[in-house]
Amino acid sequence: MLNVYLSGEIHTDWREQIISGCGEGAFKFTSAITDHEASDAAGDVLGKENNGFWRDHKSAKVNAMRTKNLIEQCDIAIIRFGDKYKQWNAAFDAGYCAALGTPYITLHSEDIIHPLKEVDAAAHAWATSPQQVVELLNYIAGDL
Amino acid sequence: MLNVYLSGEIHTDWREQIISGCGEGAFKFTSAITDHEASDAAGDVLGKENNGFWRDHKSAKVNAMRTKNLIEQCDIAIIRFGDKYKQWNAAFDAGYCAALGTPYITLHSEDIIHPLKEVDAAAHAWATSPQQVVELLNYIAGDL
Amino acid sequence: MLNVYLSGEIHTDWREQIISGCGEGAFKFTSAITDHEASDAAGDVLGKENNGFWRDHKSAKVNAMRTKNLIEQCDIAIIRFGDKYKQWNAAFDAGYCAALGTPYITLHSEDIIHPLKEVDAAAHAWATSPQQVVELLNYIAGDL
Amino acid sequence: MLNVYLSGEIHTDWREQIISGCGEGAFKFTSAITDHEASDAAGDVLGKENNGFWRDHKSAKVNAMRTKNLIEQCDIAIIRFGDKYKQWNAAFDAGYCAALGTPYITLHSEDIIHPLKEVDAAAHAWATSPQQVVELLNYIAGDL
Amino acid sequence: MLNVYLSGEIHTDWREQIISGCGEGAFKFTSAITDHEASDAAGDVLGKENNGFWRDHKSAKVNAMRTKNLIEQCDIAIIRFGDKYKQWNAAFDAGYCAALGTPYITLHSEDIIHPLKEVDAAAHAWATSPQQVVELLNYIAGDL
Amino acid sequence: MLNVYLSGEIHTDWREQIISGCGEGAFKFTSAITDHEASDAAGDVLGKENNGFWRDHKSAKVNAMRTKNLIEQCDIAIIRFGDKYKQWNAAFDAGYCAALGTPYITLHSEDIIHPLKEVDAAAHAWATSPQQVVELLNYIAGDL
Amino acid sequence: MLNVYLSGEIHTDWREQIISGCGEGAFKFTSAITDHEASDAAGDVLGKENNGFWRDHKSAKVNAMRTKNLIEQCDIAIIRFGDKYKQWNAAFDAGYCAALGTPYITLHSEDIIHPLKEVDAAAHAWATSPQQVVELLNYIAGDL
Amino acid sequence: MLNVYLSGEIHTDWREQIISGCGEGAFKFTSAITDHEASDAAGDVLGKENNGFWRDHKSAKVNAMRTKNLIEQCDIAIIRFGDKYKQWNAAFDAGYCAALGTPYITLHSEDIIHPLKEVDAAAHAWATSPQQVVELLNYIAGDL
Repeated sequence: MLNVYLSGEIHTDWREQIISGCGEGAFKFTSAITDHEASDAAGDVLGKENNGFWRDHKSAKVNAMRTKNLIEQCDIAIIRFGDKYKQWNAAFDAGYCAALGTPYITLHSEDIIHPLKEVDAAAHAWATSPQQVVELLNYIAGDL
Repeated sequence: MLNVYLSGEIHTDWREQIISGCGEGAFKFTSAITDHEASDAAGDVLGKENNGFWRDHKSAKVNAMRTKNLIEQCDIAIIRFGDKYKQWNAAFDAGYCAALGTPYITLHSEDIIHPLKEVDAAAHAWATSPQQVVELLNYIAGDL
Repeated sequence: MLNVYLSGEIHTDWREQIISGCGEGAFKFTSAITDHEASDAAGDVLGKENNGFWRDHKSAKVNAMRTKNLIEQCDIAIIRFGDKYKQWNAAFDAGYCAALGTPYITLHSEDIIHPLKEVDAAAHAWATSPQQVVELLNYIAGDL
Repeated sequence: MLNVYLSGEIHTDWREQIISGCGEGAFKFTSAITDHEASDAAGDVLGKENNGFWRDHKSAKVNAMRTKNLIEQCDIAIIRFGDKYKQWNAAFDAGYCAALGTPYITLHSEDIIHPLKEVDAAAHAWATSPQQVVELLNYIAGDL
Repeated sequence: MLNVYLSGEIHTDWREQIISGCGEGAFKFTSAITDHEASDAAGDVLGKENNGFWRDHKSAKVNAMRTKNLIEQCDIAIIRFGDKYKQWNAAFDAGYCAALGTPYITLHSEDIIHPLKEVDAAAHAWATSPQQVVELLNYIAGDL
Repeated sequence: MLNVYLSGEIHTDWREQIISGCGEGAFKFTSAITDHEASDAAGDVLGKENNGFWRDHKSAKVNAMRTKNLIEQCDIAIIRFGDKYKQWNAAFDAGYCAALGTPYITLHSEDIIHPLKEVDAAAHAWATSPQQVVELLNYIAGDL
Repeated sequence: MLNVYLSGEIHTDWREQIISGCGEGAFKFTSAITDHEASDAAGDVLGKENNGFWRDHKSAKVNAMRTKNLIEQCDIAIIRFGDKYKQWNAAFDAGYCAALGTPYITLHSEDIIHPLKEVDAAAHAWATSPQQVVELLNYIAGDL
Repeated sequence: MLNVYLSGEIHTDWREQIISGCGEGAFKFTSAITDHEASDAAGDVLGKENNGFWRDHKSAKVNAMRTKNLIEQCDIAIIRFGDKYKQWNAAFDAGYCAALGTPYITLHSEDIIHPLKEVDAAAHAWATSPQQVVELLNYIAGDL
């Protein structure tokens, strides 16, 4: 059983493509909460904040309790960068994996190779499509 | 002696402001090579690459031999995000510090609070000016 | 399955509220022995002590064999401070979690914010009611 | 050279007694910032907060950048509990040391033995006066 | 489920007493191979040795592949010293546990307190009978 | 259940001999992908490379995502050196195990004792036939 | 500079032989307090104990604050077993080193090979005279 | 100061070329004992062995006390493969570095790329001449 953490972009269906492509049995897939509004509001139950920084801070820390454990437990992470937004959290997760020695695969298009060179340098593979990730994961998990 | 790693943006003089503001004696400051062209060409001595990905890959890995050691040896990191570029390497360094349990201070303006919320959530402080960082570092290193 | 350690106050039913609120299936809850007299007498089977310090010492070390393992195995700890007693063991558990990098949620009323500031600073969230903890845990464990 | 971290109560001169009693040469003593007002205001340079929780939070995290490094670097910690205040930060530091495997000596009077039994159980010694700590440290550091 | 490693003396039935006393369900007990002759001959399959040191060396290393893994996986170890033989391997296992931070209970009679003081000092409890160990283990594993 | 990683030579049936000799139940055996051509082509799905070094590099890193996890999860590794080829990957795996403190058994004929002396020095046993390995593993896993 | 910890027997001058044999410059030698009476009385400053177990316990824990740090800081340990006494503390130190991955050399006569086989199996060398240890240390530290 | 360990081939002057090329001040270079005969005889002082395996075993373990410490202390390792001999110890050192997360540079000619692909895949750079290594090290250590 290969434990795979799916990090990054939440606006396309790359997670679903990988999960359905890999089929059942050999994998456990985990992820941050990918519902954008729920994620931003994760800390609101603890009380309203007038200051945007602290609202974000509380929610981000609640989310971190989930992601920190899932990343530390995974065997491999997929780090996805889409073509919009800053996506610093994806790069943060990549650095976290690198420090733990957990291998990760980056998933992004060719036009952002240069700004991602440090993130790719610590990766074990760079893929440009979810289908490539599926093929890699099936190979890696072959006859475990 | 406090060992401080300065990560991120290389286009303004924030490093110099912090170093000169902190004065001598109580601090050791380290950093990646901040000469942009030298950094991009760090791997060229090992042979030319026609493919841009591999040229970046080789250089980024040569640079990583420097930064990986310096980050692992620092007591505190300053993670700077400017107002231009992707700066995924800064977020990567923050994640690396977080996994090691090394405290870091983010340094960025107010308008990027939301996309940096995960990075700020794992930080020990968020500053908006080099002068604030100087005051924090002097306080932290007081009478060591 | 999220492994949650419940640390601290033993005089109210906050543990039961959290356990029953979270429902079955997604959680494993653990705790120190919460029967006060049994806990104080944990070492008595090894022989009576005339000196109060050594009686406490033996019992506390027997209890530590339980709590040390449970804390090291948990994914998240809840650290509860009530409105009576010193409760140094709860703060000790929080420090233990912080050193391990295990996220924890503090659960206490607003009037002890200031003396708990170091403990709260290393926490991932501060809650004031068991119901808030239940909501956080259900969110964090969503779709695991 | 023995690196000794002095944690806890800041209202009596126990630190000075230990430092002057141990003499020069064999020891390096470190500590949190013990100026109460400066410590509470440590984060104010980053901007004023209307909410007391966040003011405390910012200051406590700034202080943690100092104490976390000093505790992780020490060989032995002295954990002092006075006869007033909650002093949860001292118990937090003890738990932090215990998780790291760093030995510590508690320093407190006999009347709080029972509430400190978990903290004392993980300690390597319990002293009731700074002079006892001085004798222990001089013995431990003998002919290093 | 508490994983308990039983280390030391192999000439009395203390292991059986503990295992049968604890009953089923809450414990997993492990141990070195306790058949003395089989243990001494563990390396013979790899070829005969004329030199006694090397025969012992090979067998001890084969046995270590078993014990090293079992000790590293246990939650608690019981370290038993009988009234005969050197039993340096039991003290070695205690030191191994101490370095890992794994709690252990020593089991020995009162007349060897003084030579075992360093081993007992790092223990979480000292018992004089298997029945005491059974009571401690049942207490520690209560309602896990 | 003993988790055994089988590293090295892929041209004889030593893996099958060990697996069938050990029987079912007490062991989990893992290994790199041992299909030579599939292994060399592991990275081809990510795009063709004209340069032999980069093709090897990509494939080796894809394979490393599998082997790194499997080696880190095993209890014991078997490191096999045949009588042909460089087999530097087998020695690399041995060094990896040594650094992790994972015991391993080398499996090689007598004529390469001298060049393998550093690898054998860090091993827990040296065997010359798969049947010897089977006997060792059955002994080590006895009554687990 | 090689940091060498000298553990075990305190009744002959083997420590002095090694220290004087190695000469100055390349080594730092450390050790427990080897004055038997001072060591047994190390905890007396904290108050008299009527019970022999607790007197030993207090002193052993005071001594452990010294030895634990020194062992964790050493590069190599020498573990000496004389021909008298139980010397369980020496075997304990060997196990501690083994768990940390710190290499050690045992120093004992041939007649106790069999009871020390587990301790020797985890050692990097077995010597029978201080002069042999001196030669090994000088070799190991050559041209550092 | 960059601590660089030089591992592998001992029959050409690549070590001297690197050391003299890097100049003084910014580097500390370490290495195994490179005198082949002295290295093979490192354990002879402990007594003659008739069996070649055990002679090698004793010497290799004596050498390991040196190399294990030096590798664990280095910031960067250079792993050199010449065009003769098995050189399994160099690949072993590379695996050891990889497990520790210590970056290394391989130094070998182009004709052994394929058998070294796993070793190169975990490296941070592949060089073909000592002069390239000198340039990389000077770049990495720039303005430390």
